[in-house]
Amino acid sequence: MSKPYTEICKSAKYKLTGNGDRRIELLIESFEHMDLSMDADMYGTGSIINDFEEELAQLLGKEKAVFFPSGTMTQQIALRIWSDEKESKKVAYHPLCHLEIHEKDGLKMLHHMESILLGREDRLFNIEDLISVAAPIACLLVELPQREIGGQLPAWDELVELAQFCKEKGIKLHLDGARLFEVLPYYNKSASDLCGLFDSVYVSFYKGLGGIAGAMLAGSAGFVEQSKVWKRRHGGDLISLYPYIINARYSMNKRMGNMKAYWQHALSVAEGLNKIEGIRTIPDVPVCNMFHAYFDASKETMENIFASIIEKYNLCLIGNIKAIDGLSCKSEFTFGDSFSLLPPGLLEDALNHLESEIKKRQV
Amino acid sequence: MSKPYTEICKSAKYKLTGNGDRRIELLIESFEHMDLSMDADMYGTGSIINDFEEELAQLLGKEKAVFFPSGTMTQQIALRIWSDEKESKKVAYHPLCHLEIHEKDGLKMLHHMESILLGREDRLFNIEDLISVAAPIACLLVELPQREIGGQLPAWDELVELAQFCKEKGIKLHLDGARLFEVLPYYNKSASDLCGLFDSVYVSFYKGLGGIAGAMLAGSAGFVEQSKVWKRRHGGDLISLYPYIINARYSMNKRMGNMKAYWQHALSVAEGLNKIEGIRTIPDVPVCNMFHAYFDASKETMENIFASIIEKYNLCLIGNIKAIDGLSCKSEFTFGDSFSLLPPGLLEDALNHLESEIKKRQV
Repeated sequence: MSKPYTEICKSAKYKLTGNGDRRIELLIESFEHMDLSMDADMYGTGSIINDFEEELAQLLGKEKAVFFPSGTMTQQIALRIWSDEKESKKVAYHPLCHLEIHEKDGLKMLHHMESILLGREDRLFNIEDLISVAAPIACLLVELPQREIGGQLPAWDELVELAQFCKEKGIKLHLDGARLFEVLPYYNKSASDLCGLFDSVYVSFYKGLGGIAGAMLAGSAGFVEQSKVWKRRHGGDLISLYPYIINARYSMNKRMGNMKAYWQHALSVAEGLNKIEGIRTIPDVPVCNMFHAYFDASKETMENIFASIIEKYNLCLIGNIKAIDGLSCKSEFTFGDSFSLLPPGLLEDALNHLESEIKKRQV
Repeated sequence: MSKPYTEICKSAKYKLTGNGDRRIELLIESFEHMDLSMDADMYGTGSIINDFEEELAQLLGKEKAVFFPSGTMTQQIALRIWSDEKESKKVAYHPLCHLEIHEKDGLKMLHHMESILLGREDRLFNIEDLISVAAPIACLLVELPQREIGGQLPAWDELVELAQFCKEKGIKLHLDGARLFEVLPYYNKSASDLCGLFDSVYVSFYKGLGGIAGAMLAGSAGFVEQSKVWKRRHGGDLISLYPYIINARYSMNKRMGNMKAYWQHALSVAEGLNKIEGIRTIPDVPVCNMFHAYFDASKETMENIFASIIEKYNLCLIGNIKAIDGLSCKSEFTFGDSFSLLPPGLLEDALNHLESEIKKRQV
């Protein structure tokens, strides 16, 4: 390849995954129907922030909600509040939880908390994993879907069982709902039905909703009040958050109802990929708009193949490919608006080309 | 008054202080000359964030700079880095430092650090206050100007003396430069001359610059690299910060050169107020674009008088008035763009009216 693969991807007219490029015009687009004479929010007050918080509290079936600049801040704070309430520094979550692998140990370095990793990296944890924890834990964090293993989900009954166990044992249950709206079609539940199992809930406005940034934390009035104090302590109580809030609300309204369609796109593409020898997806059958694909070829080989597809079809099947070792690589597929812009037949042609290119190299 | 005073203030066509109302159109205005097809910054990378960081590093005369969503986050992190480096949990600052009174004890609750309050609440601290501290401190924070006492400044020679003392004693020196550009005319120094006295520097893009939010932290390359890790831990490493960055850069370019004019407005208004019996300003002669005014009358009385001025002259002299006790109150005056929009003579008429209304009530 003459250019880096990411550059080649950017040049493609069509993209299989995502909600389109993150261009700064997204912000302007979300302000188009706003009354520009409106007052900015000021340190958590004002209709721009408070109306949206009320809307989300209602949607999630919680007493109150509070807007945060980031999910990282939101979740550390939620766990800290439960830790203080339960007088235990221990919280339990999946070994590949965002707090464990993407936050430079903020939970430990700032809040001096201890994480108990449930189950194994390559699967969802279950009630047995939780029961096997000897230490008293303040909180269990459940991430739906479990992103780092391709967006897997426990069955509804398993979730209910987890929630009942936590209630009996006095363990607070927190939902990492960064992709909350994405999983509702699978469970065929409303957001408030799902959140009803949890004491506190975090949702993100980028990921599937395609906003710029921002998060919401919801729970009881007392919990949310405490979280505002911690938000100030973390440096998240910005004088004005409206650039994110207006965009978040716009993005939510635009895409919240599309999650079933995004999921169906994931299903059809995973099916297509799994038919190709040398590719398999996890999960085999997606349960939301995402999955991970594993390739029995090096990152370099797959980038060359995907680059040839971009050259031939002007379609980028996937952007970010991670090497596992010299002989295999993987990638995360997340479906959004881009899929519906594909001309009929283009994807089929590209997948056929992908299969034949892989076959060529297997010979 | 039929309406709350803050409502009456909003209705005034002219405002003596500030940079105008914080309307959401400010964001859109700052995007007007941008190429909207530009890529968003992603987790601290991309030209939108990196170019601005380089510009500020150069302007402040430091190796590197990093953009943060808030000053609260910036300063806790700066102090934490120096604390770790110096292996001391103690930092010294003014009793009315932002970290001490506006951050819900984030420095103590998140970083377990201990503050040593230098000098007295009602004056600047000095070298003797610093020398009198027995404990070994990691860092001294100097806020220029000292906002909570009306924006006072030490003389340049005193600053140089403090810096030399810190250097000799191995104490890191951090600048709370939330209002850095505001103080340069008084010192008649460049930003890099002033920042050259300090190991680390924080600047804010709202305050005098009139942006929406956001801050920059500057220092050595190693210091800034560490601050990025803490930024992630605090939940400040947002996927995209461009809404604030683009506006910050726009606001800085728009107002950075106006600080001397803003200061002159502060000088003339303070002089006018000090001529009125029952009003005095701190400092007596402002050293930047701000001062505090003290009124020998209740908050209610002063609000009634200021409301009558709004009714008669369509001019709001000051918005936010704080009661000290039942017989006195105070307010913060900060000068920006609004002053230059006043029609000739209006301010003089309003100050005359203010004087006669106060006199009436003194009889």
